[in-house]
Amino acid sequence: MSSNTFSKPNSVVLVSGGLDSATVLAIAKSQGYQCYALSMDYGQRHRVELQRAQLVAEANGAVEHRIVRIDIGNFGGSALTDNALDVPTEASDDIPITYVPARNTVFLSVALGWAEVLNASAIFIGANAVDYSGYPDCRPEYIESFQTMANLATKQGVQGNTIEIKAPIIDLTKSDIIKLGLSLGVDYGQTLSCYNPSEQGQVCHVCDSCRIRAAGFAEADAEDPALV
Amino acid sequence: MSSNTFSKPNSVVLVSGGLDSATVLAIAKSQGYQCYALSMDYGQRHRVELQRAQLVAEANGAVEHRIVRIDIGNFGGSALTDNALDVPTEASDDIPITYVPARNTVFLSVALGWAEVLNASAIFIGANAVDYSGYPDCRPEYIESFQTMANLATKQGVQGNTIEIKAPIIDLTKSDIIKLGLSLGVDYGQTLSCYNPSEQGQVCHVCDSCRIRAAGFAEADAEDPALV
Repeated sequence: MSSNTFSKPNSVVLVSGGLDSATVLAIAKSQGYQCYALSMDYGQRHRVELQRAQLVAEANGAVEHRIVRIDIGNFGGSALTDNALDVPTEASDDIPITYVPARNTVFLSVALGWAEVLNASAIFIGANAVDYSGYPDCRPEYIESFQTMANLATKQGVQGNTIEIKAPIIDLTKSDIIKLGLSLGVDYGQTLSCYNPSEQGQVCHVCDSCRIRAAGFAEADAEDPALV
Repeated sequence: MSSNTFSKPNSVVLVSGGLDSATVLAIAKSQGYQCYALSMDYGQRHRVELQRAQLVAEANGAVEHRIVRIDIGNFGGSALTDNALDVPTEASDDIPITYVPARNTVFLSVALGWAEVLNASAIFIGANAVDYSGYPDCRPEYIESFQTMANLATKQGVQGNTIEIKAPIIDLTKSDIIKLGLSLGVDYGQTLSCYNPSEQGQVCHVCDSCRIRAAGFAEADAEDPALV
């Protein structure tokens, strides 16, 4: 196949190494975007996430993958960055302790900066309001408010060229995300969802994220290739 | 003097080492906030800025000063982070090349994360719409849109405790900022405004920022202690 990549609109896609953002990258590519994958090294306890992000970016056709280091993990307050806090193994109705303060806002803001430099027309994020209903920054009204702010914040926005903030899986269930990703050829064996993996990426099976993933594969009537 | 600092509301104050943010820190303190100073190491060409930020934070009563490293300078696109681009020495009607893509959005987002962890009730930023009218993210409507987004993004916001985004000098001229800061005891000799200083912090006198500063001191009928 030959293609002229210069004719495609650019997009920045936030890629974490998890299942959701891998699916979103495949969606962005299927919509005809040239994809620049962006991962954040924010002091997450588990470095293996960033290795998985690199694999996912390459396998799903990103033209470039960048890891931006940012020290927000040092602020504390989340079990995902603070070794003093335990990752819970039971669901909760409150905002979970795995919530990282302002994480999606920081990630989208950094993506916005890169999008400006790339003259990109979209930013893709794997926010999901169904399985992460406890995270305030995974709700559609949050994404809309970020869009309004981004339009006012940027050179492009001021000049009338909106950088669209796209959250294409925000209303999908985990099983629908998995079915969509499988139809787009995503290899979920590369992805890691566990909040508490070993250094080699062995999952714990008991954290919120492991349990939501397992239920999603079961409901999609599919086998999780990461567990084979 | 004795005081019970625990009774004061917390605030995060963005401090760059420049004149505007030094003034804003003094304003925040004068309004009774306990101030946590935050600077960003975003790959600015001139490291001396961060040394000045440290001086300013200490001299103006911050209880803590943090420097968060974030690699957005690697994206390029600005004369303030990219050595391949020259800092201009003449004013322009366009968005200046010294504009760093999405800078205030990234800075405010990181401040928002720290504010959540500190349970702070305000974030202060030295955005100014008068002398930096070419920067989209220095306008009041931008700050308002960030506020709306922040209310939806955060645990506090969801629980009804707004983290107020305060830009107290946004409508002031440079001379009014200087007069206000002098009345609050700010030592502008510690601050650095130049876009193109030497490693020791000697200013160039010809960049936009030097010229705006010199005109501000002249109009305020004051001597710039940094030049004495």
